[in-house]
Amino acid sequence: MIPVDHTGGSMKKKIDMVATGEEMYSLIRRLYPICRSITGNGVRDTLQILREKVTLQMHEVPTGTKVFDWSVPKEWNIQDAYVKNSQGEKVINFKESNLHVLNYSIAVSRKVSLEELRGHLFTLPETPDWIPYRTSYYNENWGFCVNYNTYRDLTDDTYEVYIDATLEDGHLTYGEFLVEGREKGHEVLISTHICHPSLCNDNLSGIAVATFLARHLSRISLKYSYRFLFIPGTIGSITWLSLNEKNVDRIWHGLVATCLGDSGSFTYKKTRQGDAEIDDVVAYVLEQSEKDYRIADFAPYGYDERQYCSPGFDLPVGCLMRTTHGEYPQYHTSADDLSFVSPENLAESLSMYLEVIAVLEGNRTYINMNPKCEPQLGMRGLYQKIGGAEQGKKLQLAMLWVLNMSDGNHSLLDIARRSKQQFDILCEAANHLEEAGLLKQSFPQVQP
Amino acid sequence: MIPVDHTGGSMKKKIDMVATGEEMYSLIRRLYPICRSITGNGVRDTLQILREKVTLQMHEVPTGTKVFDWSVPKEWNIQDAYVKNSQGEKVINFKESNLHVLNYSIAVSRKVSLEELRGHLFTLPETPDWIPYRTSYYNENWGFCVNYNTYRDLTDDTYEVYIDATLEDGHLTYGEFLVEGREKGHEVLISTHICHPSLCNDNLSGIAVATFLARHLSRISLKYSYRFLFIPGTIGSITWLSLNEKNVDRIWHGLVATCLGDSGSFTYKKTRQGDAEIDDVVAYVLEQSEKDYRIADFAPYGYDERQYCSPGFDLPVGCLMRTTHGEYPQYHTSADDLSFVSPENLAESLSMYLEVIAVLEGNRTYINMNPKCEPQLGMRGLYQKIGGAEQGKKLQLAMLWVLNMSDGNHSLLDIARRSKQQFDILCEAANHLEEAGLLKQSFPQVQP
Amino acid sequence: MIPVDHTGGSMKKKIDMVATGEEMYSLIRRLYPICRSITGNGVRDTLQILREKVTLQMHEVPTGTKVFDWSVPKEWNIQDAYVKNSQGEKVINFKESNLHVLNYSIAVSRKVSLEELRGHLFTLPETPDWIPYRTSYYNENWGFCVNYNTYRDLTDDTYEVYIDATLEDGHLTYGEFLVEGREKGHEVLISTHICHPSLCNDNLSGIAVATFLARHLSRISLKYSYRFLFIPGTIGSITWLSLNEKNVDRIWHGLVATCLGDSGSFTYKKTRQGDAEIDDVVAYVLEQSEKDYRIADFAPYGYDERQYCSPGFDLPVGCLMRTTHGEYPQYHTSADDLSFVSPENLAESLSMYLEVIAVLEGNRTYINMNPKCEPQLGMRGLYQKIGGAEQGKKLQLAMLWVLNMSDGNHSLLDIARRSKQQFDILCEAANHLEEAGLLKQSFPQVQP
Repeated sequence: MIPVDHTGGSMKKKIDMVATGEEMYSLIRRLYPICRSITGNGVRDTLQILREKVTLQMHEVPTGTKVFDWSVPKEWNIQDAYVKNSQGEKVINFKESNLHVLNYSIAVSRKVSLEELRGHLFTLPETPDWIPYRTSYYNENWGFCVNYNTYRDLTDDTYEVYIDATLEDGHLTYGEFLVEGREKGHEVLISTHICHPSLCNDNLSGIAVATFLARHLSRISLKYSYRFLFIPGTIGSITWLSLNEKNVDRIWHGLVATCLGDSGSFTYKKTRQGDAEIDDVVAYVLEQSEKDYRIADFAPYGYDERQYCSPGFDLPVGCLMRTTHGEYPQYHTSADDLSFVSPENLAESLSMYLEVIAVLEGNRTYINMNPKCEPQLGMRGLYQKIGGAEQGKKLQLAMLWVLNMSDGNHSLLDIARRSKQQFDILCEAANHLEEAGLLKQSFPQVQP
Repeated sequence: MIPVDHTGGSMKKKIDMVATGEEMYSLIRRLYPICRSITGNGVRDTLQILREKVTLQMHEVPTGTKVFDWSVPKEWNIQDAYVKNSQGEKVINFKESNLHVLNYSIAVSRKVSLEELRGHLFTLPETPDWIPYRTSYYNENWGFCVNYNTYRDLTDDTYEVYIDATLEDGHLTYGEFLVEGREKGHEVLISTHICHPSLCNDNLSGIAVATFLARHLSRISLKYSYRFLFIPGTIGSITWLSLNEKNVDRIWHGLVATCLGDSGSFTYKKTRQGDAEIDDVVAYVLEQSEKDYRIADFAPYGYDERQYCSPGFDLPVGCLMRTTHGEYPQYHTSADDLSFVSPENLAESLSMYLEVIAVLEGNRTYINMNPKCEPQLGMRGLYQKIGGAEQGKKLQLAMLWVLNMSDGNHSLLDIARRSKQQFDILCEAANHLEEAGLLKQSFPQVQP
Repeated sequence: MIPVDHTGGSMKKKIDMVATGEEMYSLIRRLYPICRSITGNGVRDTLQILREKVTLQMHEVPTGTKVFDWSVPKEWNIQDAYVKNSQGEKVINFKESNLHVLNYSIAVSRKVSLEELRGHLFTLPETPDWIPYRTSYYNENWGFCVNYNTYRDLTDDTYEVYIDATLEDGHLTYGEFLVEGREKGHEVLISTHICHPSLCNDNLSGIAVATFLARHLSRISLKYSYRFLFIPGTIGSITWLSLNEKNVDRIWHGLVATCLGDSGSFTYKKTRQGDAEIDDVVAYVLEQSEKDYRIADFAPYGYDERQYCSPGFDLPVGCLMRTTHGEYPQYHTSADDLSFVSPENLAESLSMYLEVIAVLEGNRTYINMNPKCEPQLGMRGLYQKIGGAEQGKKLQLAMLWVLNMSDGNHSLLDIARRSKQQFDILCEAANHLEEAGLLKQSFPQVQP
């Protein structure tokens, strides 16, 4: 067990980031060909592979289960799909890319004219080489997605359309993994969706970063417990919230992990509350990173933060990503492939999550046990006798700040903001003062 | 009865603005010659003419009635006034302009030297062609106002000064008109002063806009009730507040209407509270107008908002005008005449008031009846099956915003500000959601 | 007894500032040679001289008295000290400058090598002509401070080091002076440290300004009581707070006075609260001064505000100085001498304190006794009949502002901020309105 520390720098040093970046990329390469959807064996196979890294628990929720305003849908599975021309050539073939099938298509097997076929084809005329990714979850339909060049070249012919898919009572499958910390009732939620087929940035990058983050956290000592959810988008978070409604007040902080493999700079989308501790912490880490970044206000579209931040829950869950969905042209197309993400970007994203967690873990609120006038630091060996070293002066100043501000209303991060002293030096100062009995941690009794 | 709508655009379409501009201008032309003051027949004649447009109620409050710290003054009436030189020529003549008499002058009839006369003459040396407008309500005095050229050319002579006026026990007269809305206890106050003689912008423009606004509102279905006051400045609002002290908590919003015919851009003077809903609404409408405008903080001088916003009332009453009193040189002079105002400016002012009212009427606060996770919009036909039309996408996004923010603490206007979505699209979204049973209006129980 | 007034201007006129500047400078010249420390006869002699100006009370607190986390230290007294070379020449001589001895040095009398001597010498290589000021209060040690040129020229020799000092049970001495105002339970604290030896700006300037401020205030009628403390830094304020813990809630406002003789512009360091009335008042006075100034946030280092603003007290005590400690090179060196401060700067500092006190004294909160609509000012002779004089218009406008804002929630200073009217004209307006029975002072019942 590696002892807890409070600085992102040292937390990262426990990991070989180059190697971990490669491991994450390998995982993505392995998961890429699987045809995932919001239910079905693609999800099961994916979770089974993740279980090689972390011992996540798999949940199966039966079709028809009422989850708030929704019902768990029928389970969808697909074996094969194609469109053949009259010469028997497969002009569209699911075996070549699982994006070719409209996700959640019902089964079909018949001959159609070009005109009828075209009514079931989806294309992207502006990027004619790319296959779009389209779904039809709650509206039974069949269809194919195809690059525009192919679409354009289809001749007047009779086509055989064939989709060997089932849509039947079954289950919605999701994975859950809990890393228990010292304070069991206080959880950090890390949520990632697992419902996209052959798309790398959205969402295999989120799956990979969440998996390796979970693996790393399970090896160190932590204050908070960390709950990882690997769930289908929208219906998955709705299902989890419905099944776990009584326990959501354990969630003190949360992040939705997605779009973490591209080369763009980081974007943080704030919680609906807008001033939650996780908002402060991520903003602070981004500021300190000396990289470009963007902080966006909450908006009720995007990923599963939509559900966590619905007004009946209003959980402090933000979304930390690189380039936001919809803001890169490859989004939801076949161009979001293995070349669009890289081991280096994945590693940098994992580092950023670790730095956020380091500040979350280190951020405490103290009560000064000697609040009337300054305590005599010299008597306790906490005061430098000789002026000297720069680091020593910083530590001493940090002690004065922590003592002065520790009235139960200011966290170490608040003090960092106000004093312009570094967070990790304030943590170090607080540790010295706590050891000397001059500070006591103030534990909030209720959810902030 | 025209059904209620929530957008200024459609609210305005019910009116032919060009024709209404001309009607307002005609009304001003008719009212212009009348010699008004804070009491007397000029006010009565004015209100009688307004009654041709709206069936306003006329109130008569007897001289001596105690109204807070004040008393209703004696009633003033004037028949004629002039200054004659020794040749019998009328060098100053009330019949030519009622501004020539110091308003509220007592009667006088005697011969005076040039020197004594000059002690009773008021001029504007810097604009020597203009007659000033002066009053002496609470200090018995006689006097004449005259252009500086005439004043300068007066020769050493004996002058006959004659003012045939009475200042006797009588009444203070004001008009009141109530348009009843669906929510009777919730009123919007529109107040305009009616005490100025031949001055067009201040205040015939306010009278004209208030009158035609009242006429229009009386023809449509409204949420709020609208109370229009046509009152003498200061003593009129003090009198009305004194007589209606118990009912002022019905006033949820209010505007003082004045200076609405000149060609200047709009100025909004905020309520004393500074953050009342009317302040937000007017600011929003002005921002959306794509015209120049100015928003000024409350100050305890100006028009009757001084009384409505005195600390013992502190009503949410602002003042929406074009150029502010005192900021145009024609203010309180004979140059504030029929050429200084125009049908177009009056029509634009009326439109602005209608747009403000449209937002006030449309601005509601809702409770999401399905606050835990998003409701399934598709099931209710509220979700677009095919991507398509831009307007449809906006509406769908607007629905997500309204659902997410409707926790009883955010009005549609608040949501418009936060989401940067258009107010009228949010209103439309809210209407759909309310029909589907997903929203319920939250009625504030107490005055905001 | 000079009657109270509310404007810094007139408050200053009672004093001949040129003469008072000279008097303050003379006092500094007289106090300069005395060797002060945190205890001992240097402090006693200093306070004795101050008693010629104000009848301050001297307190003696025995060594060993427990004061919060600290104990009153042994008393230190010194008669002589020098370093002699083998020729018997005094190469360092306490009689030439009391800075030559490490303050609080223990006695020593022996021969040492150059090498050993150097381990006890303190210098400033970057300003080789200046002697540093160093202390060793809570760490028994002996040492000398010397200019670097002398230090560098010391030859390899045997030196006699001699310090005739005592460190024995005795007392900590401080001075206290209370000017009683009309509201006895409401005090303004003015605190200055008296522990520095031959240093003029830090801290003889603070002593001089505080002394003459005390003398002046004792001659006029005041609303608040003013408590002046002349105390050793840190241990003095800790001791006073410990002995007076039960009475600190009398302190409604406070300032630490130091560094008030140099030619730099003013710096105000805010209270820990950051929005105390003293913060507003000093900021307002500085803004109005049309001089350069700087306002700094509270930080837990500096002077005795560290103790007054420790979280267990959190008193509204700021620090009004000229150039901040440590930001001028002469700080804590022999160059902070009589040439570094001037009568003019001292007089300007005293004026600034008097202006702050004038606003503090004049700042009141009123209740409008006629809050519903404006009162009829004319009836009470408070309304100008003729337009005329500019000053009269300002006063009238000031009356409208005071009446409108006086709901018990806005002080005159708040009204000055909001209305952009001058504070002293608002005070004058309030006086007229109070005399007319239209305003009543609102006394806060609890500490703000």
